[in-house]
Amino acid sequence: MSPWRSEPYPVTVTPGGRALFVIERAAVPLFGIRAYGVHLNGYVREAGRLALWIARRSRTKQTYPGMLDNAVAGGLPHGLTARECLVKECEEEAGIPQAWAAAAPAVGAITYTGTMPEGLRRDVLYCYDLELPAGFRPECRDGELEAFTLMPVEDVAAIVRDTTQFKFNCNLVIIDFLIRHGIIGPDEPDYVAIAKGLRQ
Amino acid sequence: MSPWRSEPYPVTVTPGGRALFVIERAAVPLFGIRAYGVHLNGYVREAGRLALWIARRSRTKQTYPGMLDNAVAGGLPHGLTARECLVKECEEEAGIPQAWAAAAPAVGAITYTGTMPEGLRRDVLYCYDLELPAGFRPECRDGELEAFTLMPVEDVAAIVRDTTQFKFNCNLVIIDFLIRHGIIGPDEPDYVAIAKGLRQ
Repeated sequence: MSPWRSEPYPVTVTPGGRALFVIERAAVPLFGIRAYGVHLNGYVREAGRLALWIARRSRTKQTYPGMLDNAVAGGLPHGLTARECLVKECEEEAGIPQAWAAAAPAVGAITYTGTMPEGLRRDVLYCYDLELPAGFRPECRDGELEAFTLMPVEDVAAIVRDTTQFKFNCNLVIIDFLIRHGIIGPDEPDYVAIAKGLRQ
Repeated sequence: MSPWRSEPYPVTVTPGGRALFVIERAAVPLFGIRAYGVHLNGYVREAGRLALWIARRSRTKQTYPGMLDNAVAGGLPHGLTARECLVKECEEEAGIPQAWAAAAPAVGAITYTGTMPEGLRRDVLYCYDLELPAGFRPECRDGELEAFTLMPVEDVAAIVRDTTQFKFNCNLVIIDFLIRHGIIGPDEPDYVAIAKGLRQ
């Protein structure tokens, strides 16, 4: 299967800056070029308890098939702002109404550098939280995902801690969510190291 | 005026670890010893708009007199957990009920190293958010503060951006709040640098 994805990625000097040129997405990690993505935590709060909508990637997806993923996530292509990309991905991937995605608060940025099977990844993930109504169910629309499951936040935390079911960077987005919502707190011995680790 | 503060600070190898020895608080930055503090964003949400309770430090306080401060903040002394310290400071400094402070979510940790007039500060700030009812008014109880003012979050952001009215590290706590609540978002050209800067 060709790794070619037919998605033009911009190469910039600064985040959101003018594109010097564009490059096929599959080639970005081959050159270690910084890439940007948007990741959305879709959550439900019932009786004070948090639950997260977790996606499973399609078994036929080119990258990380069958792994668990955030409710919505996507690479930032050439020509879209982070917000525009988020609104588009929310609708296309999960059937989340545009107005909801447009109002989802940005909650921070995660940065990392790491060697993956596809090459050197130097990524910035723009993170968003969206509280969803209890009756809403995301739907798999574009064939990139196989299923959505609503899981209690403690179960998601256990999967992140004890398994490798999540795509590597989605773990970070969830850990950031757990820190911002006080599920992981200063009682955790590695709290400071974890918080710093999300901005490497 | 003697800088002695009569507050014993623990010296540890890891955050929250066993104290190797304790040292007078005023001497901590003279040796560049890592210190820990708790900072609380006390906020009100009305009709979807956020406002922050901002404290002004007493003009007679030994350190940073008269400067603006977070709703509640304090150094973590020997023998208290971060949560115990938060609950104590909330009650003593601002008259915030213990049950509210006990339930305020931890939202992350800020780290920095910097040379200040008092010496080398290598600090970890444990941050908490507390949404307060619209009718509640914090009160200055222990003489460390002069006044509390409820300010629209945009006004607080402007003070942080344009002035030096806030004590240096309280600026960071507010910037972290602005990032987590989407007041500063990916449209800000320095967004990634700001996010990384809070975990140096």
